[in-house]
Formats: sequence, C-alpha cells, structure tokens
Amino acid sequence: MSRVRVAAFSLSLDGFGAGPRQDLQNPLGIRGGELHQWFFPTEAFRKMQRQTGGSQGPDNDVALQSFENIGSWILGRNMFGPIRGPWQDDSWKGWWGTNPPYHVPVFVLTHHSRPPLEMEGGTTFHFVTDGHESALKQAKAAAKEKDVRIGGGVATIRQYVEDGLVDELQLSLSPVLLGEGENLFAGINFAKLGYATAKIIAGENATHVVIKKS
Amino acid sequence: MSRVRVAAFSLSLDGFGAGPRQDLQNPLGIRGGELHQWFFPTEAFRKMQRQTGGSQGPDNDVALQSFENIGSWILGRNMFGPIRGPWQDDSWKGWWGTNPPYHVPVFVLTHHSRPPLEMEGGTTFHFVTDGHESALKQAKAAAKEKDVRIGGGVATIRQYVEDGLVDELQLSLSPVLLGEGENLFAGINFAKLGYATAKIIAGENATHVVIKKS
Repeated sequence: MSRVRVAAFSLSLDGFGAGPRQDLQNPLGIRGGELHQWFFPTEAFRKMQRQTGGSQGPDNDVALQSFENIGSWILGRNMFGPIRGPWQDDSWKGWWGTNPPYHVPVFVLTHHSRPPLEMEGGTTFHFVTDGHESALKQAKAAAKEKDVRIGGGVATIRQYVEDGLVDELQLSLSPVLLGEGENLFAGINFAKLGYATAKIIAGENATHVVIKKS
Repeated sequence: MSRVRVAAFSLSLDGFGAGPRQDLQNPLGIRGGELHQWFFPTEAFRKMQRQTGGSQGPDNDVALQSFENIGSWILGRNMFGPIRGPWQDDSWKGWWGTNPPYHVPVFVLTHHSRPPLEMEGGTTFHFVTDGHESALKQAKAAAKEKDVRIGGGVATIRQYVEDGLVDELQLSLSPVLLGEGENLFAGINFAKLGYATAKIIAGENATHVVIKKS
C-alpha cells in the first residue's frame, strides 16, 4: 500500500531540523550541515556524488532505505532553493545540478507559479501553488502504488503531520545541539496525533528512529 | 576535580523529562514512567529494589556510572514529593521508603523550611529555602572532592543550566513521544551556553548522550 513517508530526516538532539538564517551560503541554516554528518560518509551518499567507497553499516542501510519504493517527493520551497518571493526568472534549478538525486516527480510547494522543470535522470519539478493538500493529491497520483516521500523542510513536514497526513517518519538524531533553528516537535503533540516509536536503529554516527501513526 | 552533574536523566524523543499533571498516583506525570523503561530491567535498579538478576549491558553501565563518585544530590521539591505549598507536618519522607537510594546528603529546593530529615543508609534530606545557588554551595561543601548530582526535575536542571552551573549532563533518550509535559530544551540554547555532545552510548532500551560544557 502506498504510504506517505518522511525518511532519513536529520534532527539535532534538541529537535532542530535546520539551523537559523538559511541562505545561499548556508542552505541548511547556520550549523545545519552538522545534522547530516552521519549521511555523508555512507556509500549511498558517495554514490549520489558519483564517488566510490563509503561506509556500509546501519547508517548506510538507513540511507538506502530512505530511497526505496519512493514514487514521488514533496519539498517545501526553501528546500528547493534560497529564493524568496516571486521567481525572477527560471534560472534557479535546485541545489543538485543537472541530474538531481530524485529520479521521480518532485512537487515543490510555492506561492508563485512556474512551469514544470524537467531535469536529467527522470526528475521533474512541479510547482504547486494551490496548497499542501493539492500537492499531496498530485504526488500520490504520480507515485501510483509507491510511497510519497516528504523531503522537508521542517515547516513542510510539520504542516503534513499536523493534518495527520504522514504515515511514517524515520528521523535520524545526530549527536549535536543546535540551540536554535527550525524545531520539528515544538508545539506539536505527536503522541496525541497517534504517533509512536516503532523502531530504533543505532547507527555509527546517528540514532535512527522510526515513528508510525496508528 | 568535583563536578556538577546530571546523570541518567531520562528524556522522550521530543524532549520531555516528565509527563504533565504530576500527583501522588503519577509522580512522574502522565506517561512519565515510560521514560524510565530502560532503567527498570537493569541489575543496578534491581539491586536498589533488593532484587537479584537484571541486565548487565550498556544500560546497566550507564545506571551504575550515574551513582559513581556522587558526594551529594540536589532535588527540586516536586521530585521529593507531591505536596505543594507549606508542609502540613513532617510525615512525608520522600518517595523512597525508609532507606532512600542516595546514601549521601540530599539538598531539596523548597520555599518552606523544615528540619533536616535523617533516613536510614546515610541519606539526610536538607531543605534549602534560600535559593538554588545556596543549595549548590551547600551541596558542594557536603560533596567535598566528589561530584554533586542534580537529580531533577526538569525545572531544577533548567535553572542550573541557564546559570551555566552544570558541567556535564548525561541524558538517556527513551524511544517514546510524550507530546506534553516538562521539556528540557525548550527556550534554552544549550549550544550558546557552551554545551556540546561528547559521547553517545547505544543502550538496549535507550540512547545515552553525554553533554559537556566547554
């Protein structure tokens, strides 16, 4: 059955999924990159970068699983790029170069319309201006029997969680304290929304938690 | 050198160290007991209960270390008991029976004075009415070259952390989502206060994190 999933989503111990003050130089916010230190040494990440080698332990397993059976993605606009407000032109094509690591349709939440952007390798960015529910509907249709992965950022995940639309979150707790930024948990009662921990995986550089909705 | 430590302090994944609505029936708040499920199966805890057996893995190591080299404790009043406001009499002697698991002087923060309470096994509860800094001063004097352990609850730990008075926190992340209760991290920027993760220990039933102040 098709599910709506968050996967390999990195969080600090104090619950932040991104640092403050995101911009072109700091796409993950100040110190946000530290959240992903578990991911970078994995074989899965290195392959995405067209490099060889890398770790093959539990961190790599989690990274691999996060890409399995994904039929489409949803991204918040800030995850697609640093531009705010109307698109000046169509020159910004995402952070990921000509061949992004998605290889399926990606629905980008935005208030500003833009034609679909077809990239190499099977990724097409669709810009959705009529809200997150519409984006999910389109993403589900595109994914067919596969899963929809909500890639982030934090605000986007929170929006879908608050509406009870996410079936599973696999969070990766990195051993860092950010102290400020975008907090996944603040002001949301995950327990009351029906979420509970299903599994813990001790990785080499992060603790991976699977949270499911009952 | 004598340090001020928090140790084996259980937190939910969403940062809560106790559930809401603490009372005599729920000394840890609603669902607060779930935070400590890693501790109960350990040999260390079973010994405290005068029982044999129990696990001897990393969870037990963490439990044992939390009691090592402790010369005195500080507890918030809610951790000492469910009574609020003035003491009606001296009949409440803590949650722990006649022989509490401290075996050293314990300084209890309260606004209401009460004579020291000497228990079996070396524990004496001292009731401190002139503030948390005074309690720490007294606890350090009592601990001599050993460490002062701040037992909790959350509000008490936050108070000392915010003043930069805690050298090390060993937190035990339990695989539960509480959704409400007392949050350790909310509104405190641990990173800015100089705290950083020094160590992660994957236990059988919790992930243990050691956070040190630079």
